[in-house]
Amino acid sequence: MLLGGRGLVGILDADITGPTIPKLLNLRGKELLAGPNGIKPVIGPLDVKVVSIDYLLPNDCTPVIWRGPLKTTAIKQFIGDIDWSRLDFLFIDLPPGTGDEPLTIAQSIPNITGAIIVTIPSEVSQIVVRRAVGFCRVLNIPIIGVVENMSGFVCPNCGVEVDLFMKGGGERIAVEMGLDFLGRIPLDKRLYEASDRGWIAYS
Amino acid sequence: MLLGGRGLVGILDADITGPTIPKLLNLRGKELLAGPNGIKPVIGPLDVKVVSIDYLLPNDCTPVIWRGPLKTTAIKQFIGDIDWSRLDFLFIDLPPGTGDEPLTIAQSIPNITGAIIVTIPSEVSQIVVRRAVGFCRVLNIPIIGVVENMSGFVCPNCGVEVDLFMKGGGERIAVEMGLDFLGRIPLDKRLYEASDRGWIAYS
Repeated sequence: MLLGGRGLVGILDADITGPTIPKLLNLRGKELLAGPNGIKPVIGPLDVKVVSIDYLLPNDCTPVIWRGPLKTTAIKQFIGDIDWSRLDFLFIDLPPGTGDEPLTIAQSIPNITGAIIVTIPSEVSQIVVRRAVGFCRVLNIPIIGVVENMSGFVCPNCGVEVDLFMKGGGERIAVEMGLDFLGRIPLDKRLYEASDRGWIAYS
Repeated sequence: MLLGGRGLVGILDADITGPTIPKLLNLRGKELLAGPNGIKPVIGPLDVKVVSIDYLLPNDCTPVIWRGPLKTTAIKQFIGDIDWSRLDFLFIDLPPGTGDEPLTIAQSIPNITGAIIVTIPSEVSQIVVRRAVGFCRVLNIPIIGVVENMSGFVCPNCGVEVDLFMKGGGERIAVEMGLDFLGRIPLDKRLYEASDRGWIAYS
């Protein structure tokens, strides 16, 4: 496992108008500070380096009322002006859709290793995902594979598994588009609780 | 009930890079056609008038690789160049966040009746929602209230209610920000099935 092996990992929260990475990693309230080689990312659990616009907003109610060109500038600065130092991996979290944020990433970073496409197993979500796959293909970004989120739910009371959304949508779209299916993330109360609390599990 | 009374209703799908309204209303594959007074919306169930960029894309895999200014132009055309004719209500579906789409709407339509804020009951979602409330306040858009989506789940096998996400988040954020709480939409398999099939219930 990568994180267990302490690879040098960065996370760039490129969801400019809905940044949530600091919350998920229990890293809110920190600051991006200037250093000799640029702005230093916040250091999180397992020494993960995190950059998010959340760190630049004075409080929870401050909206980022920015049109696309400003978002693009912010993302370019997050890539170019941050002292990421050496990294083995940089994960970039993007908002849904195919707008300014993924386009800026695609045009600013040469040789992207690949995109991981996340869907929920509903046909409605798959429409958005098909276009995201088309986006990667037009921009020559390799697709690592498809992950099905919110996949199945095991009732904590009776133990029976219920498919809230139509079953197997993620796998179906992967097969249909000639992509690898990477796996399912179940609807699990513990997962959402951990997300809200900023808990992560590692060994 | 408004729809039962056949009010003149339009729906503008302003989620330019992830349009889903035609799928939800079983109205995919239709076309926007020119008429004497502009482009005519697609007419859906209950005579609802629908406009979505989905109608302008050749197929499911065509991504909308547009930066903000193009999105803004599209939305302005959807408002100005469409022959909406007389409407009692125009619902505008927006993507998450506070980017080009809501900003364009706010600046193009004077005297917006109000915004309905939709959240899921997790703290992570509430961060995004707080900023959306801030957005409305900065732009002087009245807030009609808060809806909690994905709220509670009744197991179809044993009948016990499970809160997948932390309970009451929508109501809490409404109280905290001095807003009306409009209600909860449960995690119900039938709802997602109906969404995928484009079924709507009306009398």
